[in-house]
Amino acid sequence: MSKIIAVNAGSSTLKFKLFEMPAEQVLAEGVIERIGLPDAHVEIKYGDGQKYDQVTKVADHEAAIQILLDQLLDLDIIKDYNEINGVGHRVVAGGEYFDHSVVITPDVLKKMESLSELAPLHEPANVLGIKAFQKVLPNVISVAVFDTAFHATLPEQNYLYSLPYEYYEKYGARKYGFHGISYRYVSRRAAEILGKPVEDLKLIVMHLGAGASICAVKGGQSYDTSMGFTPVTGVTMATRSGDVDPSLLAYVMQKEGMSDINEMIDVLNKKSGLLGISGVSADMRDVEAAQADNHRAKVAREIYINRIVRYIGAYLAELGGADAIVFTAGVGENSITVRQEVTDQLHYFGIGVDPEKNNVRGVERDLSAPDSKIKTLLVPTNEELMIVRDVVELANEQK
Amino acid sequence: MSKIIAVNAGSSTLKFKLFEMPAEQVLAEGVIERIGLPDAHVEIKYGDGQKYDQVTKVADHEAAIQILLDQLLDLDIIKDYNEINGVGHRVVAGGEYFDHSVVITPDVLKKMESLSELAPLHEPANVLGIKAFQKVLPNVISVAVFDTAFHATLPEQNYLYSLPYEYYEKYGARKYGFHGISYRYVSRRAAEILGKPVEDLKLIVMHLGAGASICAVKGGQSYDTSMGFTPVTGVTMATRSGDVDPSLLAYVMQKEGMSDINEMIDVLNKKSGLLGISGVSADMRDVEAAQADNHRAKVAREIYINRIVRYIGAYLAELGGADAIVFTAGVGENSITVRQEVTDQLHYFGIGVDPEKNNVRGVERDLSAPDSKIKTLLVPTNEELMIVRDVVELANEQK
Repeated sequence: MSKIIAVNAGSSTLKFKLFEMPAEQVLAEGVIERIGLPDAHVEIKYGDGQKYDQVTKVADHEAAIQILLDQLLDLDIIKDYNEINGVGHRVVAGGEYFDHSVVITPDVLKKMESLSELAPLHEPANVLGIKAFQKVLPNVISVAVFDTAFHATLPEQNYLYSLPYEYYEKYGARKYGFHGISYRYVSRRAAEILGKPVEDLKLIVMHLGAGASICAVKGGQSYDTSMGFTPVTGVTMATRSGDVDPSLLAYVMQKEGMSDINEMIDVLNKKSGLLGISGVSADMRDVEAAQADNHRAKVAREIYINRIVRYIGAYLAELGGADAIVFTAGVGENSITVRQEVTDQLHYFGIGVDPEKNNVRGVERDLSAPDSKIKTLLVPTNEELMIVRDVVELANEQK
Repeated sequence: MSKIIAVNAGSSTLKFKLFEMPAEQVLAEGVIERIGLPDAHVEIKYGDGQKYDQVTKVADHEAAIQILLDQLLDLDIIKDYNEINGVGHRVVAGGEYFDHSVVITPDVLKKMESLSELAPLHEPANVLGIKAFQKVLPNVISVAVFDTAFHATLPEQNYLYSLPYEYYEKYGARKYGFHGISYRYVSRRAAEILGKPVEDLKLIVMHLGAGASICAVKGGQSYDTSMGFTPVTGVTMATRSGDVDPSLLAYVMQKEGMSDINEMIDVLNKKSGLLGISGVSADMRDVEAAQADNHRAKVAREIYINRIVRYIGAYLAELGGADAIVFTAGVGENSITVRQEVTDQLHYFGIGVDPEKNNVRGVERDLSAPDSKIKTLLVPTNEELMIVRDVVELANEQK
């Protein structure tokens, strides 16, 4: 029996989920926000729906971890720091170095730091979180679980862009993909629901959260995915543009008087997607609520559905069919209408949901209409569980 | 009986094809290259495989037209300038103004000039060609046939990007598509081969030339297409990148020390695609010849095929099936192996060619394997014929 914590560190946030393993029971979860500010916010959920809330000064990530652990002691969730036997860190970019989770060593940290320019917003924060945990819990195994690693199996024709090849050789300019931890978890659960080995299946998984991507999973391995070198490309997201004609950037920059391309990329990341089209909100629930008398909201929703439908068609072509398509993450797990409309538009391929089965949120379920040729599944994702499982596995290997 | 000339003017080139109408007989065709230079090149093909070649000084487009017409007189193809009853100009960008061909008036020219920033390389040259012809043949009807007009029927969810909506409202930042003259011609010929009204058909047309794009044609109208605001996006082309993660541009620019995004866009247009990946050539024939012992050439070809397959899948999803897929333009008409491999990879959808039927170049033919659910057609394109037909139609309307 051991307690393992899954950590997702951002530049000013720290999300965590503490598990009792191997029972896979969640003991506590929460987030510390506004790290570095005098009014940081600590939130811990535990027990039977209990919640601890506090606004306080949190100097840095190390202080955040101290506060978190002390609070876990106070709340009697742990009796001693030493009860925590492992820390698993979600790390955004593994580049071409990491095709699976690894125990964090000084060499691993150095490689992660060299990958910072692939994910300048996330990677340095991930490293910060790792170093802070190592200071506070120096004797505990710490494991990096990469969001890109699952996509290490992408075939060359799918990870290369049609650019001068030297950009790949010299700068690693290629598709890396993201949401890999989620795809690994969801594809395996989907196989269990279907009662077949994942190695025998072709699946198309839609991770539809604020960030959204789609993955063609062939025999349990990533075969193609819609995010690319960065998470800005692919399907339409909450505030990210997804695919866009690159020449358009030059045109808009000139019109808007922008001289720095990073300004434009910032717009693509933060002011585009559902928010940019609708002008209403980045949240699908708000956009849906507004669509009856707001044309832009209606179009935003149509575009959102359309881009998913396009990718499903593209991946059916690449895979030569599929056993199932799978919805997961915020919108995928909770929007009954998005699931209904996406599958309605895929009717030609023998895809369809039973409206009654589909009338659920956040549960594991086969939603397929009885005559479906390709099944439709709902599988809530669980990236933290995947992370702590990897910690346990690597800890056992070390013994 | 009348002679109509189809013109495609570039910044230093002038292509033409002279038809006898309504017989639709080609009297002469050719090109004047290196206009503005002392060693410009005039080439005219006529009669029974005869060819006229000359290297001479050509000051500007007006001079080019004079030389061309005088040569047509000399070669006895026309007896008098007045025999030419109409000029049809291929114009790249019609923006949101032009959803069909129009007789060129001063107002039309003004609108075309205002569209120059949508196609800075082509539109000013098109205008130059028009003005030069109007000077030399002032009393002849002159018609603009737009490469974008066929795509005026794109539904909103397909022409809008997931960008701030104001970019569309203020700057016309949207998908325009290209190769529309070709798609209009090819989709109508395909319907004739299938023996059904084009209004009843769903077609996916692949225009695979040096520039390449794909179009979903629903009921004879463009429903979606792979090129976008500019022709750089979509499938992999000879030297153009097609789709690429826009964030990657910022990264490569920083690595290469480029400060101007237009430098990067230039690379996407001229040094990418088959040429950029393979390092061998922009020509599919060379890449194919090299692939046996050149890994990059092999991958370039795989990527080229893969991107086409992806779009066919995406458009099958958008259209909810198709009656036929259609190959056209240079590679589409002449590469037996590209057609074979693309259709092989689409086997799941009930697409396939009969290898014997497919063993042809540049002829109209149904290539489908006997058990095909979706037919595969080969239809050589004829943009010039489409242009002169539009001239005749508009001339008749004016009478």
